[in-house]
Amino acid sequence: MNISSAAGVVCQNSDVNLVLLDERDRIDANCVTLSDARAAHILDVLRATPGQTVRIGLLDGSFGTGTVVFADDGRVTLRCELSGETPPRPHVDVLLALPRPKVMRRLWAQLAALGVGQIILTNAEKVERHYFDTHILDEETYRPLLIEGLQQARDTRLPAVSIHRQFRVLVEDHLDGLFSDGIRLVADPSGATSITSALSDYHNQRVLLAIGPEGGWNDFELSLLAAHGFQMVALGPRTLRVDTACTALLAITHASLTD
Amino acid sequence: MNISSAAGVVCQNSDVNLVLLDERDRIDANCVTLSDARAAHILDVLRATPGQTVRIGLLDGSFGTGTVVFADDGRVTLRCELSGETPPRPHVDVLLALPRPKVMRRLWAQLAALGVGQIILTNAEKVERHYFDTHILDEETYRPLLIEGLQQARDTRLPAVSIHRQFRVLVEDHLDGLFSDGIRLVADPSGATSITSALSDYHNQRVLLAIGPEGGWNDFELSLLAAHGFQMVALGPRTLRVDTACTALLAITHASLTD
Repeated sequence: MNISSAAGVVCQNSDVNLVLLDERDRIDANCVTLSDARAAHILDVLRATPGQTVRIGLLDGSFGTGTVVFADDGRVTLRCELSGETPPRPHVDVLLALPRPKVMRRLWAQLAALGVGQIILTNAEKVERHYFDTHILDEETYRPLLIEGLQQARDTRLPAVSIHRQFRVLVEDHLDGLFSDGIRLVADPSGATSITSALSDYHNQRVLLAIGPEGGWNDFELSLLAAHGFQMVALGPRTLRVDTACTALLAITHASLTD
Repeated sequence: MNISSAAGVVCQNSDVNLVLLDERDRIDANCVTLSDARAAHILDVLRATPGQTVRIGLLDGSFGTGTVVFADDGRVTLRCELSGETPPRPHVDVLLALPRPKVMRRLWAQLAALGVGQIILTNAEKVERHYFDTHILDEETYRPLLIEGLQQARDTRLPAVSIHRQFRVLVEDHLDGLFSDGIRLVADPSGATSITSALSDYHNQRVLLAIGPEGGWNDFELSLLAAHGFQMVALGPRTLRVDTACTALLAITHASLTD
Protein backbone atom coordinates (compact mmCIF):
# COMPACT_ATOMS: atom_id res chain seq x y z
CA MET A 1 0.00 0.00 0.00
CA ASN A 2 2.82 2.34 0.87
CA ILE A 3 5.46 3.40 -1.59
CA SER A 4 8.16 4.25 0.86
CA SER A 5 11.77 5.18 0.60
CA ALA A 6 14.48 6.17 3.01
CA ALA A 7 13.50 9.78 3.32
CA GLY A 8 9.92 10.13 2.18
CA VAL A 9 6.70 8.26 1.85
CA VAL A 10 3.58 8.59 -0.23
CA CYS A 11 0.60 6.59 0.80
CA GLN A 12 -2.23 6.13 -1.65
CA ASN A 13 -4.66 7.08 1.06
CA SER A 14 -2.96 10.34 1.87
CA ASP A 15 -2.33 13.54 0.09
CA VAL A 16 1.01 15.27 0.16
CA ASN A 17 -0.03 18.80 0.99
CA LEU A 18 3.52 19.75 1.93
CA VAL A 19 6.81 18.25 0.75
CA LEU A 20 8.95 17.76 3.85
CA LEU A 21 12.72 17.95 3.64
CA ASP A 22 14.99 16.77 6.41
CA GLU A 23 18.65 16.68 7.33
CA ARG A 24 19.20 13.67 5.11
CA ASP A 25 18.37 15.78 2.07
CA ARG A 26 21.49 17.64 1.01
CA ILE A 27 20.38 21.22 0.42
CA ASP A 28 23.21 22.88 -1.50
CA ALA A 29 23.12 26.55 -2.49
CA ASN A 30 19.38 26.47 -1.64
CA CYS A 31 18.81 23.63 -4.08
CA VAL A 32 17.79 20.06 -3.33
CA THR A 33 17.37 17.13 -5.71
CA LEU A 34 14.80 14.48 -4.85
CA SER A 35 14.45 11.10 -6.54
CA ASP A 36 12.20 9.23 -4.11
CA ALA A 37 8.45 9.12 -3.50
CA ARG A 38 8.38 12.89 -3.05
CA ALA A 39 9.79 13.34 -6.56
CA ALA A 40 7.22 10.88 -7.87
CA HIS A 41 4.48 12.90 -6.18
CA ILE A 42 5.73 16.20 -7.64
CA LEU A 43 6.06 14.68 -11.11
CA ASP A 44 3.06 12.37 -11.30
CA VAL A 45 0.43 13.96 -9.04
CA LEU A 46 1.26 17.66 -9.08
CA ARG A 47 2.65 17.35 -12.64
CA ALA A 48 4.96 20.22 -11.82
CA THR A 49 7.22 21.57 -14.56
CA PRO A 50 10.18 23.97 -14.30
CA GLY A 51 9.10 27.34 -12.93
CA GLN A 52 6.21 25.96 -10.93
CA THR A 53 6.27 26.03 -7.15
CA VAL A 54 5.39 23.49 -4.49
CA ARG A 55 4.79 24.00 -0.80
CA ILE A 56 7.75 22.74 1.21
CA GLY A 57 8.73 22.48 4.86
CA LEU A 58 11.85 21.60 6.78
CA LEU A 59 11.31 18.80 9.28
CA ASP A 60 11.04 20.45 12.71
CA GLY A 61 11.67 23.74 10.97
CA SER A 62 9.89 26.38 8.94
CA PHE A 63 7.67 26.37 5.87
CA GLY A 64 8.62 27.65 2.45
CA THR A 65 8.35 27.41 -1.29
CA GLY A 66 10.21 25.12 -3.66
CA THR A 67 10.54 26.26 -7.26
CA VAL A 68 11.07 23.44 -9.73
CA VAL A 69 14.31 24.06 -11.66
CA PHE A 70 14.63 20.58 -13.16
CA ALA A 71 12.10 17.77 -13.51
CA ASP A 72 12.69 14.65 -15.53
CA ASP A 73 13.23 10.94 -15.37
CA GLY A 74 12.08 10.51 -11.77
CA ARG A 75 14.23 13.37 -10.47
CA VAL A 76 13.19 16.82 -9.34
CA THR A 77 15.45 19.70 -8.36
CA LEU A 78 13.86 22.42 -6.24
CA ARG A 79 15.19 25.86 -5.37
CA CYS A 80 14.12 26.29 -1.77
CA GLU A 81 13.05 29.47 -0.09
CA LEU A 82 12.40 28.83 3.55
CA SER A 83 10.89 31.65 5.49
CA GLY A 84 8.61 32.22 8.39
CA GLU A 85 8.76 30.72 11.80
CA THR A 86 8.78 27.12 12.90
CA PRO A 87 5.18 26.22 13.84
CA PRO A 88 4.57 25.50 17.52
CA ARG A 89 4.56 21.91 18.69
CA PRO A 90 0.95 20.60 18.96
CA HIS A 91 -0.42 21.12 22.48
CA VAL A 92 -1.58 17.55 22.95
CA ASP A 93 0.52 14.50 23.85
CA VAL A 94 -0.79 10.93 23.94
CA LEU A 95 0.00 8.10 26.30
CA LEU A 96 -1.28 5.07 24.44
CA ALA A 97 -1.50 1.44 25.53
CA LEU A 98 0.15 -0.27 22.58
CA PRO A 99 -2.55 -1.56 20.21
CA ARG A 100 -2.22 -4.54 17.87
CA PRO A 101 0.58 -4.05 15.32
CA LYS A 102 -1.91 -3.79 12.45
CA VAL A 103 -3.78 -0.98 14.21
CA MET A 104 -0.55 0.74 15.31
CA ARG A 105 0.66 0.73 11.70
CA ARG A 106 -2.41 2.72 10.71
CA LEU A 107 -2.19 4.99 13.74
CA TRP A 108 1.28 6.49 13.20
CA ALA A 109 0.27 8.68 10.26
CA GLN A 110 -3.14 9.40 11.77
CA LEU A 111 -1.64 10.66 15.06
CA ALA A 112 0.88 12.85 13.25
CA ALA A 113 -1.87 14.24 11.01
CA LEU A 114 -4.14 15.06 13.94
CA GLY A 115 -1.25 16.75 15.73
CA VAL A 116 0.54 15.37 18.78
CA GLY A 117 3.67 16.66 20.47
CA GLN A 118 4.73 13.24 21.67
CA ILE A 119 3.58 9.65 21.54
CA ILE A 120 4.26 7.63 24.68
CA LEU A 121 3.56 3.95 24.07
CA THR A 122 3.12 1.69 27.06
CA ASN A 123 2.39 -1.81 28.15
CA ALA A 124 -0.78 -2.55 30.17
CA GLU A 125 -2.41 -5.70 31.47
CA LYS A 126 -4.52 -6.08 28.35
CA VAL A 127 -1.66 -5.46 25.92
CA GLU A 128 -0.14 -8.65 24.57
CA ARG A 129 3.62 -8.79 25.14
CA HIS A 130 4.42 -9.83 21.60
CA TYR A 131 3.02 -6.53 20.29
CA PHE A 132 6.35 -5.03 21.42
CA ASP A 133 8.41 -7.32 19.21
CA THR A 134 7.21 -6.09 15.84
CA HIS A 135 9.08 -3.92 13.37
CA ILE A 136 6.24 -1.40 13.56
CA LEU A 137 8.02 -0.04 16.64
CA ASP A 138 11.35 0.38 14.80
CA GLU A 139 12.14 4.00 14.09
CA GLU A 140 12.95 3.21 10.46
CA THR A 141 9.39 1.89 10.08
CA TYR A 142 7.42 4.52 11.97
CA ARG A 143 9.36 7.64 11.01
CA PRO A 144 8.22 7.62 7.35
CA LEU A 145 4.66 7.01 8.54
CA LEU A 146 4.82 10.00 10.90
CA ILE A 147 6.24 12.11 8.05
CA GLU A 148 3.39 10.91 5.83
CA GLY A 149 0.92 12.26 8.42
CA LEU A 150 2.77 15.59 8.66
CA GLN A 151 2.81 15.97 4.86
CA GLN A 152 -0.94 15.29 4.84
CA ALA A 153 -1.68 17.82 7.59
CA ARG A 154 0.90 20.44 6.55
CA ASP A 155 2.93 20.36 9.72
CA THR A 156 6.70 20.18 10.18
CA ARG A 157 6.87 19.10 13.84
CA LEU A 158 7.77 15.43 14.14
CA PRO A 159 6.16 13.89 17.25
CA ALA A 160 8.66 12.59 19.83
CA VAL A 161 8.22 8.86 20.44
CA SER A 162 9.08 6.78 23.49
CA ILE A 163 8.25 3.13 24.11
CA HIS A 164 7.81 1.69 27.60
CA ARG A 165 7.49 -1.99 28.41
CA GLN A 166 6.66 -1.43 32.08
CA PHE A 167 3.59 0.65 32.82
CA ARG A 168 4.36 1.19 36.50
CA VAL A 169 7.96 2.21 35.90
CA LEU A 170 6.79 4.62 33.21
CA VAL A 171 4.17 6.29 35.39
CA GLU A 172 6.20 6.37 38.60
CA ASP A 173 9.69 7.11 37.31
CA HIS A 174 9.59 8.59 33.81
CA LEU A 175 6.34 10.43 33.27
CA ASP A 176 7.24 13.62 35.11
CA GLY A 177 10.32 13.91 32.92
CA LEU A 178 8.33 13.33 29.74
CA PHE A 179 5.38 15.56 30.66
CA SER A 180 6.20 17.93 33.46
CA ASP A 181 3.64 20.65 33.19
CA GLY A 182 0.06 20.47 31.98
CA ILE A 183 -3.25 18.69 32.33
CA ARG A 184 -3.41 14.91 32.46
CA LEU A 185 -6.55 13.13 31.28
CA VAL A 186 -7.36 9.44 31.01
CA ALA A 187 -10.19 8.24 28.79
CA ASP A 188 -12.29 5.55 30.42
CA PRO A 189 -15.95 4.54 30.15
CA SER A 190 -16.27 5.14 33.90
CA GLY A 191 -15.33 8.81 33.52
CA ALA A 192 -18.13 11.17 34.49
CA THR A 193 -16.71 14.34 32.93
CA SER A 194 -16.41 15.11 29.25
CA ILE A 195 -13.10 16.27 27.76
CA THR A 196 -14.71 19.62 26.94
CA SER A 197 -15.79 20.17 30.55
CA ALA A 198 -12.44 19.03 31.93
CA LEU A 199 -10.60 21.50 29.71
CA SER A 200 -13.07 24.39 29.86
CA ASP A 201 -10.73 26.51 31.99
CA TYR A 202 -7.50 25.46 30.35
CA HIS A 203 -7.24 26.88 26.86
CA ASN A 204 -3.84 26.67 25.21
CA GLN A 205 -2.25 24.55 27.93
CA ARG A 206 -0.46 21.28 27.27
CA VAL A 207 -2.62 18.17 27.66
CA LEU A 208 -1.51 14.57 28.07
CA LEU A 209 -4.29 12.19 27.03
CA ALA A 210 -4.04 8.55 28.13
CA ILE A 211 -5.89 6.06 25.92
CA GLY A 212 -6.23 2.46 27.10
CA PRO A 213 -6.10 -0.91 25.35
CA GLU A 214 -9.13 -2.47 23.66
CA GLY A 215 -10.22 -4.16 26.87
CA GLY A 216 -9.68 -0.96 28.86
CA TRP A 217 -7.29 -0.10 31.71
CA ASN A 218 -7.55 -2.39 34.75
CA ASP A 219 -8.27 -1.05 38.24
CA PHE A 220 -4.62 -0.93 39.26
CA GLU A 221 -3.70 1.03 36.16
CA LEU A 222 -6.55 3.50 36.64
CA SER A 223 -5.60 4.02 40.31
CA LEU A 224 -1.96 4.55 39.45
CA LEU A 225 -2.89 7.10 36.79
CA ALA A 226 -5.26 8.85 39.20
CA ALA A 227 -2.51 8.93 41.84
CA HIS A 228 -0.30 10.66 39.29
CA GLY A 229 -2.71 13.43 38.49
CA PHE A 230 -4.82 12.00 35.69
CA GLN A 231 -8.45 13.07 35.64
CA MET A 232 -10.90 10.55 34.24
CA VAL A 233 -12.88 11.63 31.18
CA ALA A 234 -15.51 9.76 29.19
CA LEU A 235 -16.13 9.69 25.46
CA GLY A 236 -19.77 8.67 25.70
CA PRO A 237 -21.79 5.48 25.66
CA ARG A 238 -20.47 4.10 22.37
CA THR A 239 -17.61 1.59 22.30
CA LEU A 240 -15.24 2.54 19.49
CA ARG A 241 -12.33 0.78 17.84
CA VAL A 242 -9.00 1.98 19.26
CA ASP A 243 -8.03 3.88 16.12
CA THR A 244 -11.44 5.52 15.79
CA ALA A 245 -11.36 6.37 19.51
CA CYS A 246 -7.88 7.94 19.18
CA THR A 247 -9.05 10.18 16.35
CA ALA A 248 -12.26 11.11 18.17
CA LEU A 249 -10.52 11.88 21.48
CA LEU A 250 -7.72 13.89 19.89
CA ALA A 251 -10.17 15.86 17.75
CA ILE A 252 -12.33 16.73 20.77
CA THR A 253 -9.25 17.64 22.83
CA HIS A 254 -7.88 19.97 20.15
CA ALA A 255 -11.32 21.52 19.67
CA SER A 256 -11.72 22.05 23.42
CA LEU A 257 -8.32 23.72 23.71
CA THR A 258 -8.90 26.18 20.91
CA ASP A 259 -12.54 27.07 21.43
CA MET B 1 -10.37 -9.21 5.94
CA ASN B 2 -14.08 -9.50 6.56
CA ILE B 3 -15.78 -12.75 7.33
CA SER B 4 -19.21 -11.84 6.18
CA SER B 5 -22.41 -13.70 5.72
CA ALA B 6 -25.93 -12.86 4.69
CA ALA B 7 -27.09 -11.58 8.02
CA GLY B 8 -24.01 -10.77 10.08
CA VAL B 9 -20.43 -9.74 9.82
CA VAL B 10 -17.36 -9.93 11.99
CA CYS B 11 -14.39 -7.82 11.04
CA GLN B 12 -11.04 -8.63 12.55
CA ASN B 13 -10.59 -4.97 13.37
CA SER B 14 -13.81 -4.67 15.28
CA ASP B 15 -15.21 -6.12 18.42
CA VAL B 16 -18.69 -7.47 18.62
CA ASN B 17 -19.96 -5.81 21.76
CA LEU B 18 -23.55 -6.62 20.91
CA VAL B 19 -24.96 -9.45 18.79
CA LEU B 20 -27.56 -7.91 16.51
CA LEU B 21 -30.53 -9.91 15.31
CA ASP B 22 -32.80 -8.81 12.50
CA GLU B 23 -35.95 -9.81 10.72
CA ARG B 24 -34.04 -12.38 8.68
CA ASP B 25 -33.30 -14.34 11.86
CA ARG B 26 -36.26 -16.53 12.62
CA ILE B 27 -36.95 -16.05 16.32
CA ASP B 28 -39.27 -18.88 17.36
CA ALA B 29 -40.64 -19.22 20.89
CA ASN B 30 -38.00 -16.65 21.94
CA CYS B 31 -35.22 -18.84 20.56
CA VAL B 32 -32.93 -18.14 17.61
CA THR B 33 -30.27 -20.36 16.06
CA LEU B 34 -27.27 -18.70 14.45
CA SER B 35 -24.71 -20.40 12.25
CA ASP B 36 -22.92 -17.45 10.67
CA ALA B 37 -20.15 -15.08 11.76
CA ARG B 38 -22.11 -14.18 14.88
CA ALA B 39 -22.14 -17.84 15.93
CA ALA B 40 -18.40 -18.02 15.24
CA HIS B 41 -17.88 -14.97 17.44
CA ILE B 42 -19.95 -16.40 20.30
CA LEU B 43 -18.15 -19.76 20.05
CA ASP B 44 -14.58 -18.72 19.28
CA VAL B 45 -14.15 -15.31 20.85
CA LEU B 46 -16.61 -15.27 23.74
CA ARG B 47 -16.21 -19.05 24.15
CA ALA B 48 -19.75 -19.13 25.49
CA THR B 49 -21.16 -22.42 26.73
CA PRO B 50 -24.77 -23.34 27.60
CA GLY B 51 -26.08 -21.22 30.45
CA GLN B 52 -23.90 -18.23 29.66
CA THR B 53 -25.39 -14.99 28.40
CA VAL B 54 -24.45 -12.60 25.62
CA ARG B 55 -25.62 -9.06 25.02
CA ILE B 56 -28.09 -8.95 22.13
CA GLY B 57 -30.10 -6.34 20.30
CA LEU B 58 -32.84 -6.32 17.71
CA LEU B 59 -31.98 -4.25 14.65
CA ASP B 60 -33.87 -0.95 15.00
CA GLY B 61 -35.33 -2.35 18.21
CA SER B 62 -34.46 -2.88 21.84
CA PHE B 63 -31.55 -4.42 23.71
CA GLY B 64 -31.64 -7.69 25.60
CA THR B 65 -29.90 -10.80 26.79
CA GLY B 66 -29.34 -14.05 24.93
CA THR B 67 -28.82 -17.16 27.02
CA VAL B 68 -26.93 -19.91 25.24
CA VAL B 69 -29.04 -23.07 25.23
CA PHE B 70 -27.03 -24.98 22.63
CA ALA B 71 -23.52 -24.39 21.28
CA ASP B 72 -21.71 -26.83 19.06
CA ASP B 73 -20.35 -27.41 15.60
CA GLY B 74 -20.58 -23.80 14.46
CA ARG B 75 -24.17 -23.38 15.63
CA VAL B 76 -25.47 -21.47 18.60
CA THR B 77 -29.04 -21.36 19.90
CA LEU B 78 -29.92 -18.41 22.10
CA ARG B 79 -32.99 -17.89 24.27
CA CYS B 80 -33.71 -14.20 23.82
CA GLU B 81 -35.06 -11.82 26.40
CA LEU B 82 -35.62 -8.44 24.84
CA SER B 83 -36.57 -5.68 27.15
CA GLY B 84 -36.16 -1.97 27.52
CA GLU B 85 -36.80 0.69 25.00
CA THR B 86 -35.43 1.17 21.53
CA PRO B 87 -32.53 3.63 21.79
CA PRO B 88 -33.08 7.02 20.16
CA ARG B 89 -31.74 7.59 16.66
CA PRO B 90 -28.36 9.42 16.79
CA HIS B 91 -28.86 13.17 16.57
CA VAL B 92 -26.36 13.71 13.77
CA ASP B 93 -26.85 13.07 10.04
CA VAL B 94 -24.09 13.34 7.43
CA LEU B 95 -24.21 14.64 3.89
CA LEU B 96 -21.01 13.27 2.41
CA ALA B 97 -19.46 13.88 -1.00
CA LEU B 98 -18.80 10.30 -2.09
CA PRO B 99 -15.16 9.42 -1.37
CA ARG B 100 -13.06 6.87 -3.26
CA PRO B 101 -14.55 3.36 -3.03
CA LYS B 102 -11.66 2.14 -0.86
CA VAL B 103 -12.24 4.93 1.66
CA MET B 104 -16.03 4.51 1.52
CA ARG B 105 -15.62 0.80 2.30
CA ARG B 106 -13.82 1.69 5.52
CA LEU B 107 -16.25 4.49 6.35
CA TRP B 108 -19.50 2.52 6.51
CA ALA B 109 -18.68 0.76 9.79
CA GLN B 110 -16.94 3.83 11.18
CA LEU B 111 -19.97 6.07 10.56
CA ALA B 112 -22.35 3.55 12.12
CA ALA B 113 -20.04 3.15 15.12
CA LEU B 114 -19.74 6.90 15.68
CA GLY B 115 -23.52 7.23 15.44
CA VAL B 116 -25.39 8.80 12.53
CA GLY B 117 -29.11 8.89 11.89
CA GLN B 118 -28.72 8.97 8.14
CA ILE B 119 -26.00 8.96 5.52
CA ILE B 120 -26.71 11.09 2.45
CA LEU B 121 -24.12 10.43 -0.25
CA THR B 122 -23.79 12.94 -3.05
CA ASN B 123 -21.89 13.80 -6.15
CA ALA B 124 -19.81 17.00 -6.29
CA GLU B 125 -17.46 18.52 -8.83
CA LYS B 126 -14.45 16.83 -7.30
CA VAL B 127 -16.08 13.41 -7.01
CA GLU B 128 -15.20 11.10 -9.88
CA ARG B 129 -18.29 9.72 -11.61
CA HIS B 130 -17.06 6.14 -11.59
CA TYR B 131 -17.12 6.12 -7.77
CA PHE B 132 -20.88 5.64 -8.13
CA ASP B 133 -20.54 2.46 -10.13
CA THR B 134 -18.94 0.28 -7.46
CA HIS B 135 -20.55 -2.49 -5.46
CA ILE B 136 -19.64 -0.61 -2.28
CA LEU B 137 -22.87 1.33 -2.83
CA ASP B 138 -24.98 -1.83 -3.09
CA GLU B 139 -27.13 -2.36 -0.04
CA GLU B 140 -26.02 -5.98 0.21
CA THR B 141 -22.43 -4.74 0.57
CA TYR B 142 -22.89 -1.81 2.94
CA ARG B 143 -25.60 -3.21 5.19
CA PRO B 144 -23.32 -5.80 6.85
CA LEU B 145 -20.66 -3.10 7.29
CA LEU B 146 -23.15 -0.78 8.99
CA ILE B 147 -24.23 -3.66 11.22
CA GLU B 148 -20.57 -4.34 12.05
CA GLY B 149 -20.27 -0.73 13.25
CA LEU B 150 -23.45 -1.00 15.32
CA GLN B 151 -22.24 -4.23 16.94
CA GLN B 152 -18.94 -2.50 17.77
CA ALA B 153 -20.65 0.55 19.29
CA ARG B 154 -23.59 -1.28 20.92
CA ASP B 155 -26.32 0.44 19.01
CA THR B 156 -29.37 -1.02 17.28
CA ARG B 157 -30.33 1.92 15.04
CA LEU B 158 -29.35 1.27 11.44
CA PRO B 159 -28.50 4.54 9.66
CA ALA B 160 -30.78 5.37 6.72
CA VAL B 161 -28.83 5.63 3.46
CA SER B 162 -29.63 7.58 0.31
CA ILE B 163 -27.42 8.05 -2.74
CA HIS B 164 -27.68 11.09 -5.01
CA ARG B 165 -25.90 11.51 -8.32
CA GLN B 166 -26.91 15.13 -8.77
CA PHE B 167 -25.83 17.54 -6.08
CA ARG B 168 -28.05 20.40 -7.17
CA VAL B 169 -31.17 18.24 -7.44
CA LEU B 170 -30.41 16.81 -4.01
CA VAL B 171 -30.01 20.17 -2.32
CA GLU B 172 -32.84 21.96 -4.12
CA ASP B 173 -35.46 19.23 -4.36
CA HIS B 174 -34.80 16.45 -1.85
CA LEU B 175 -32.95 17.81 1.14
CA ASP B 176 -35.92 19.35 2.93
CA GLY B 177 -37.65 15.99 2.77
CA LEU B 178 -34.61 14.15 4.10
CA PHE B 179 -33.75 16.69 6.80
CA SER B 180 -36.62 18.98 7.59
CA ASP B 181 -35.85 20.37 10.99
CA GLY B 182 -32.50 21.05 12.60
CA ILE B 183 -29.15 22.75 12.19
CA ARG B 184 -27.22 22.48 8.94
CA LEU B 185 -23.44 22.79 8.99
CA VAL B 186 -20.88 22.47 6.22
CA ALA B 187 -17.23 21.80 7.02
CA ASP B 188 -14.87 23.90 4.93
CA PRO B 189 -11.39 25.35 5.54
CA SER B 190 -12.84 28.80 4.90
CA GLY B 191 -15.25 28.48 7.83
CA ALA B 192 -14.58 30.98 10.58
CA THR B 193 -16.68 29.36 13.31
CA SER B 194 -15.91 26.11 15.11
CA ILE B 195 -18.51 23.37 15.37
CA THR B 196 -18.59 23.86 19.14
CA SER B 197 -19.38 27.58 18.80
CA ALA B 198 -21.94 26.98 16.06
CA LEU B 199 -23.78 24.47 18.27
CA SER B 200 -23.33 26.18 21.63
CA ASP B 201 -27.00 27.13 21.86
CA TYR B 202 -28.40 24.01 20.28
CA HIS B 203 -28.00 21.03 22.60
CA ASN B 204 -29.93 17.90 21.69
CA GLN B 205 -31.14 19.22 18.36
CA ARG B 206 -30.71 17.36 15.10
CA VAL B 207 -27.63 18.35 13.10
CA LEU B 208 -26.88 17.72 9.44
CA LEU B 209 -23.15 17.89 8.79
CA ALA B 210 -21.95 18.25 5.18
CA ILE B 211 -18.44 16.94 4.48
CA GLY B 212 -16.84 17.68 1.12
CA PRO B 213 -14.64 15.66 -1.23
CA GLU B 214 -10.84 15.49 -0.86
CA GLY B 215 -10.36 18.60 -2.97
CA GLY B 216 -13.14 20.45 -1.12
CA TRP B 217 -16.49 21.82 -2.26
CA ASN B 218 -16.31 24.29 -5.15
CA ASP B 219 -17.70 27.83 -4.93
CA PHE B 220 -21.02 26.93 -6.55
CA GLU B 221 -21.54 24.05 -4.17
CA LEU B 222 -20.70 26.19 -1.12
CA SER B 223 -23.08 28.93 -2.29
CA LEU B 224 -25.88 26.48 -2.91
CA LEU B 225 -25.39 24.95 0.55
CA ALA B 226 -25.31 28.43 2.13
CA ALA B 227 -28.50 29.36 0.27
CA HIS B 228 -30.13 26.29 1.79
CA GLY B 229 -29.31 27.13 5.37
CA PHE B 230 -25.89 25.58 5.86
CA GLN B 231 -23.55 27.46 8.17
CA MET B 232 -19.85 27.13 7.41
CA VAL B 233 -17.69 25.61 10.13
CA ALA B 234 -13.95 24.95 10.19
CA LEU B 235 -12.02 22.03 11.65
CA GLY B 236 -8.77 23.91 12.07
CA PRO B 237 -5.61 24.47 10.07
CA ARG B 238 -4.70 20.81 9.52
CA THR B 239 -5.71 19.02 6.32
CA LEU B 240 -6.98 15.56 7.21
CA ARG B 241 -7.76 12.50 5.14
CA VAL B 242 -11.49 12.23 4.44
CA ASP B 243 -12.00 9.26 6.78
CA THR B 244 -10.02 10.88 9.60
CA ALA B 245 -11.90 14.14 9.02
CA CYS B 246 -15.27 12.35 9.18
CA THR B 247 -14.41 10.77 12.51
CA ALA B 248 -13.03 14.03 13.91
CA LEU B 249 -16.00 16.13 12.77
CA LEU B 250 -18.60 13.63 13.99
CA ALA B 251 -16.86 13.25 17.35
CA ILE B 252 -16.73 17.02 17.88
CA THR B 253 -20.36 17.39 16.79
CA HIS B 254 -21.57 14.70 19.20
CA ALA B 255 -19.45 16.18 21.99
CA SER B 256 -20.82 19.67 21.31
CA LEU B 257 -24.42 18.47 21.39
CA THR B 258 -24.12 16.67 24.69
CA ASP B 259 -21.87 19.02 26.63
